[in-house]
Amino acid sequence: MTRAAVDRTPAPPRNLNRDISATLERFISRKRADFALLGPDVTPLFDLASQAVAGGKRLRPAFAYWGWRAAGGSATDTEAITTAAAAVELVHASALIHDDVIDGSATRRGRRSTQQEFAALLPGGAVPSSGPPPPEVSNARSIGRPPPDKSVEATGLQFGSSAAILLGDLLLSWSDELLATSGFKPKVAARGRRYFDLLRGEVVAGQYLDVLGQASDRSTAADAMRVVRYKSAKYTVERPLQFGAALAKAGEPLLTALSSYGVPLGEAFQLRDDVLGVFGETQVTGKPSGDDLREGKRTLLLARAFDEATAEQAAVLKEHVGDSTLDAGGIAAVQQVLRDTGALTNVEAVIAHLKSASLAALESAPITDQEAVEALRSLADQATNRSL
Amino acid sequence: MTRAAVDRTPAPPRNLNRDISATLERFISRKRADFALLGPDVTPLFDLASQAVAGGKRLRPAFAYWGWRAAGGSATDTEAITTAAAAVELVHASALIHDDVIDGSATRRGRRSTQQEFAALLPGGAVPSSGPPPPEVSNARSIGRPPPDKSVEATGLQFGSSAAILLGDLLLSWSDELLATSGFKPKVAARGRRYFDLLRGEVVAGQYLDVLGQASDRSTAADAMRVVRYKSAKYTVERPLQFGAALAKAGEPLLTALSSYGVPLGEAFQLRDDVLGVFGETQVTGKPSGDDLREGKRTLLLARAFDEATAEQAAVLKEHVGDSTLDAGGIAAVQQVLRDTGALTNVEAVIAHLKSASLAALESAPITDQEAVEALRSLADQATNRSL
Repeated sequence: MTRAAVDRTPAPPRNLNRDISATLERFISRKRADFALLGPDVTPLFDLASQAVAGGKRLRPAFAYWGWRAAGGSATDTEAITTAAAAVELVHASALIHDDVIDGSATRRGRRSTQQEFAALLPGGAVPSSGPPPPEVSNARSIGRPPPDKSVEATGLQFGSSAAILLGDLLLSWSDELLATSGFKPKVAARGRRYFDLLRGEVVAGQYLDVLGQASDRSTAADAMRVVRYKSAKYTVERPLQFGAALAKAGEPLLTALSSYGVPLGEAFQLRDDVLGVFGETQVTGKPSGDDLREGKRTLLLARAFDEATAEQAAVLKEHVGDSTLDAGGIAAVQQVLRDTGALTNVEAVIAHLKSASLAALESAPITDQEAVEALRSLADQATNRSL
Repeated sequence: MTRAAVDRTPAPPRNLNRDISATLERFISRKRADFALLGPDVTPLFDLASQAVAGGKRLRPAFAYWGWRAAGGSATDTEAITTAAAAVELVHASALIHDDVIDGSATRRGRRSTQQEFAALLPGGAVPSSGPPPPEVSNARSIGRPPPDKSVEATGLQFGSSAAILLGDLLLSWSDELLATSGFKPKVAARGRRYFDLLRGEVVAGQYLDVLGQASDRSTAADAMRVVRYKSAKYTVERPLQFGAALAKAGEPLLTALSSYGVPLGEAFQLRDDVLGVFGETQVTGKPSGDDLREGKRTLLLARAFDEATAEQAAVLKEHVGDSTLDAGGIAAVQQVLRDTGALTNVEAVIAHLKSASLAALESAPITDQEAVEALRSLADQATNRSL
């Protein structure tokens, strides 16, 4: 996305980002105070909770907010919807932490991943990260010697993963707690909750299909698209939109229209992410280049490449995809195959198609607030270009 | 606990167990139907959710129910409290699944742990369990070949842990969803929610202190007791009681009295569990004998032993505790030190003291329902004897 396009983004989402951050920080401060009785040992839980909710593009809260506006929600009385949208961001922070444990990722958003931060609390616990030098966590400190029968590093990593699992659980529990305090009337809150519940269930199901596909080495296009739909499209776009809209008492026609806009857009968003995962630069993605390939992530891009590959090209893919030691040369070789098989062109065409289907649904959606229509159009650009 | 003591347990908790199971099964069936669109690949999530909520002593729902009754809740109109109590059991099932991932446990309740069940879905994925031969999961089946650059076993275990993290997340999300459908009026539900939120936060904090203590090899009595308090006493007894009582609109005096009964009882319960973890038989605990020692679990029992140990005795403890290959001879050597240092006698004395403090608080609690008083007395026996 060009800078000019960024500047066209309507003002409210920017304030929204600030308000979401403030809401999350206030909530975490309150929790920190609630747990003060447990002493300083639990401090890292709150420090790393703050870090986990900092940054990010806040796409899900933005969709929740604009879903609310699309359904006639007030542009000025926004405290309740901001709190509800912040609850969705807590779900997301939890999912990212657990995702990094599952993938064994050392970095997230250009910093150490949560499990690496926890590991660094033990002497010698963190492994060198391939990302930029990570900032220190406040209150990080050494705590005694590790058990004698394990390597310092193994103990640190095991502790880091365990603690990250626990912090993810905490943020997931907090998401409900925050939602429950958002101040919507019970009947309205229950309408929103339906989509909040769907969102939380579907992302787990999508992630499950993803790890199952990786473990069993399945990489058909249909498998890849099913993961994209549940893990990303519904979770990132459709459900947050419907959640916000339901909190503004949207009727079925609008909820359906938001689905018709949201699902293809969310799919396009994930496909763009997959392309950036192979072709993107670290400074854009916040992840080391080629990490998706090292993890062996099953994407539509790869499925298309396998479909069209010659025996030689397939051998290149098989050699490199899932190789945790993949270097720049290997990445370049895979990129070449993705280009030569037409997989990249194909996926770019799919992204363009999905985006235009999404925008077409938006044009015919029963939305009267023109600012909301414009914002949703702009979000479609942001989500599919992903170079903010 | 003797059979006669079991038979003294009042009738309602037995019906409660049946009702809790029925509520959980209905809920999981509904979820299974909601996710039918995703196809048979996600079936194991629901099969293993069912397995995860089956069995167990249902102590937390029992305390929630009797907290409700203690506060004057109806003995006949119990659908709402049963649903709310079942929500607590979902939290617990989630915590156990994640606990087994954190500890790398192969078994739970005499069956394969959840991550081992998931691992067994892949060909060759499960490692041999030291427990009894596990039953097959329905719909378990092979799904393609594993990625070529990893051992079959490593892929299976990694998939198993990843899937178990996700299933734990799902159950944690469901706990809210179930609670939200329990049918209490919003104002009453909000009173209960306060304790539900505390329960979910405190168990994470307690677990965190536990893994931190293990990783940093701290084992003072004060550290051990802090873990016991948050991970067990509040989570298992105090908060479920207060949760149920709040749902029956309990006032502060009763909520405080339930805390005075619940915290020492919960501490006694965990100390009993720690003793059984070293001295208990597999058929009583459902866990392989000595597993707590192999894990290097930091207990009051060990802290006391270290406090009183001669240099030779300390060397025995250091040699065996945390040794993942510990055999029967090693277990016997540790048991001998725990006896010879007086640690076992000391902890048994603490258990007896805590139990009597708990019962004394119960006697002076403002509870008019005599059946509730009797049931809470009986639960104190059950929880501290733990040989059901």
